[in-house]
Amino acid sequence: MQDNSISKASTLAIGDELLIGQVINTNAAWIGDYMQQRGIQLVEHRCVADAQEAIVSAIESMRRSCDLIVITGGLGSTKDDITKEVLANMVQSPLYFDDTLYAALCARLEKLKIPLLDAHRKLCTMPSKAELWSNDVGAAPGMLFRYRDCFLLSLPGVPYEMKYILEGAGSEFLQKHAPDHDFFQETILTSGIGEVALQSKIQDIIEKFPDFAFAYLPSFAHVRLRISAYGQSDMKSRAEQLTKLLLDRLADYVYGMGQQHITETIGKLLLRQSKQMAVAESCTGGLISHQITKIPGSSTYFLGGITAYANEVKKSILQVHPLTLDRYGAVSRETVTEMLLGVLKLTGADVGIATSGIAGPTGGTESKPVGTIWIAYGSADDQRTKLLHLHHRRQINNEFTAHIALNLLRRFLLE
Amino acid sequence: MQDNSISKASTLAIGDELLIGQVINTNAAWIGDYMQQRGIQLVEHRCVADAQEAIVSAIESMRRSCDLIVITGGLGSTKDDITKEVLANMVQSPLYFDDTLYAALCARLEKLKIPLLDAHRKLCTMPSKAELWSNDVGAAPGMLFRYRDCFLLSLPGVPYEMKYILEGAGSEFLQKHAPDHDFFQETILTSGIGEVALQSKIQDIIEKFPDFAFAYLPSFAHVRLRISAYGQSDMKSRAEQLTKLLLDRLADYVYGMGQQHITETIGKLLLRQSKQMAVAESCTGGLISHQITKIPGSSTYFLGGITAYANEVKKSILQVHPLTLDRYGAVSRETVTEMLLGVLKLTGADVGIATSGIAGPTGGTESKPVGTIWIAYGSADDQRTKLLHLHHRRQINNEFTAHIALNLLRRFLLE
Repeated sequence: MQDNSISKASTLAIGDELLIGQVINTNAAWIGDYMQQRGIQLVEHRCVADAQEAIVSAIESMRRSCDLIVITGGLGSTKDDITKEVLANMVQSPLYFDDTLYAALCARLEKLKIPLLDAHRKLCTMPSKAELWSNDVGAAPGMLFRYRDCFLLSLPGVPYEMKYILEGAGSEFLQKHAPDHDFFQETILTSGIGEVALQSKIQDIIEKFPDFAFAYLPSFAHVRLRISAYGQSDMKSRAEQLTKLLLDRLADYVYGMGQQHITETIGKLLLRQSKQMAVAESCTGGLISHQITKIPGSSTYFLGGITAYANEVKKSILQVHPLTLDRYGAVSRETVTEMLLGVLKLTGADVGIATSGIAGPTGGTESKPVGTIWIAYGSADDQRTKLLHLHHRRQINNEFTAHIALNLLRRFLLE
Repeated sequence: MQDNSISKASTLAIGDELLIGQVINTNAAWIGDYMQQRGIQLVEHRCVADAQEAIVSAIESMRRSCDLIVITGGLGSTKDDITKEVLANMVQSPLYFDDTLYAALCARLEKLKIPLLDAHRKLCTMPSKAELWSNDVGAAPGMLFRYRDCFLLSLPGVPYEMKYILEGAGSEFLQKHAPDHDFFQETILTSGIGEVALQSKIQDIIEKFPDFAFAYLPSFAHVRLRISAYGQSDMKSRAEQLTKLLLDRLADYVYGMGQQHITETIGKLLLRQSKQMAVAESCTGGLISHQITKIPGSSTYFLGGITAYANEVKKSILQVHPLTLDRYGAVSRETVTEMLLGVLKLTGADVGIATSGIAGPTGGTESKPVGTIWIAYGSADDQRTKLLHLHHRRQINNEFTAHIALNLLRRFLLE
């Protein structure tokens, strides 16, 4: 393969299921972000049907404006998967049966106790002009082709397989073909301040750095502030200066940098303080526990969680007093505080979080409408509470609650 | 406007934030589904930057293969919003200031207590050749243009505004221009069988229905099978016949139809059988609990869950015997069974699920490598177990485990 730099990239997703909206094309966004972080400019995203003519015509038109087209999908073994044949045809490459690939696939299927079928052989027929990139989490490897002035990289459409290959062989490849301009990017993660307020708070700093682009990405109860710049010679030192100014100004609102989740920040704090935590969830239904345990190594500091959906479970497991539930209801400062104390006692954790609320869409009353949510956080000696009035939909309410609760615990740990 | 039928449509999303993955283009999927349900064939989705050249060149190339391009984004009042000007230029339409639109906007802003700014006037400058479609939930109306043989429909990028306009004026318009062919679509949701095996199992049926398209959409431990067809006269009866044949053949593997999650199927089964459930999770860390509680109304049948991450919690809360943990380890048939019994006893649930495994990336041993996962499911009288050997990454292991465990419980409830 030629050794030129990749400055511009596009994505091409292949699949009827994407066209008709049965599957949302999250791959384009993920690849866009992945390329952008490496200083590669994104030209376009396209999505076409599993049809030879559509694929060929898209590639022919796209290759004129970029150095790399990342093609996802259509690599399976079923009749609708034609990407490999179409690409082989375009680059005029004969197909061969790859014995090594077949042996690896057989071993993988045996381990997964999946019966080997004739159709699996199709997965191992490869274009000889393709450089194969290994895929240990699926059957189809990545395939890199050179076509005219452009690289064509064909990847499986299954997101975790696509990511596995791009983060593996892809990372090395992009490093080797790094764009010939400088690029800087940093993301500051903030919680507890809105998008508009955030912008006003840093307006004077922004004006001092006209050569930098600022983007605000609001999500559930947090805003990511992305700063980026292309190509200036004194960029690095100016970027450092800018980052420092922003971090100073935003101080307590900042919970991290880059792509990390707030649970990673909390994990690091807990490890540093040699503390352990636990959660008691009602409305969030396991979401906080799930977010914490997504982080590898969380078993060191996360002891466990109770999803106390039924009141009986709040009483029997978390030892919430029946009188508390009768007098104040499940969604109350009193109940959520007892839930927190209950889970701390049960697990022996140092700190914890408890949630109880009405996530919706039904279950609201006049005094406690949908979106009324109580959070308790703290330790056995010091419990704090916070009342939220949200009015989003069920899943959004829970995502908001989880992030706000985790941010409250983060600040508690920092005191 | 001319009164021809719309048989083929494409979407064009405009915005840097979509290109670099700051925002996922969910609009394309939603519009794709909306069109598909009306029998309109989707040709392609594209996404380009906020740049005149990119927009013009995309439209010029797309219009050749479809009757309608739905363009989203770039209609705001900030500097990077140029869609309206570019389209006016393409169709050679002068711009005028729309007083009615401005009066409506002023009234709306006053109601929302948003101060009126000069920038708002830009939103009311309209191309005279556009047919305006009202937007009561935002500032920018939809604009319909005729350009050569194609309709161009420009909509705001904010998803709920786009949907509001398409479901309002758009619905009437599409009815008036309905395609001149019939359309059928159904999705069968399967679990416990791979993509390749699924296809072989129904190969003879597929061959009897050459006029139908079959697509396989694999995800974590489940495969969605989509059947669709255009335009035959006896399509409806043949579609029913085909669906029946497939459901009979796939029998136990089918957990639902359409878009539902397996937790919805389980919820319905539990309601029908007047049973309640609970979960005890180690490796899945709250994921199963979270997936169950995502379903509105799940509090009727879901009592609660224990995330027993630490062995101490397995002992103290779930009453797993210390000797069991010592002798067999946390990842064992014995431990996971005691976890299940523990949570059933604690919550009083009729049925339940328990998981314990090594999700990775570390923590594996020679006899129990990463990906070794035990699942227990059943009732107080009847516990079953299943051992998985996965070797994906942490999050993928857990997603797989959750789906497999839920499917095992589904089958148990069906016995």
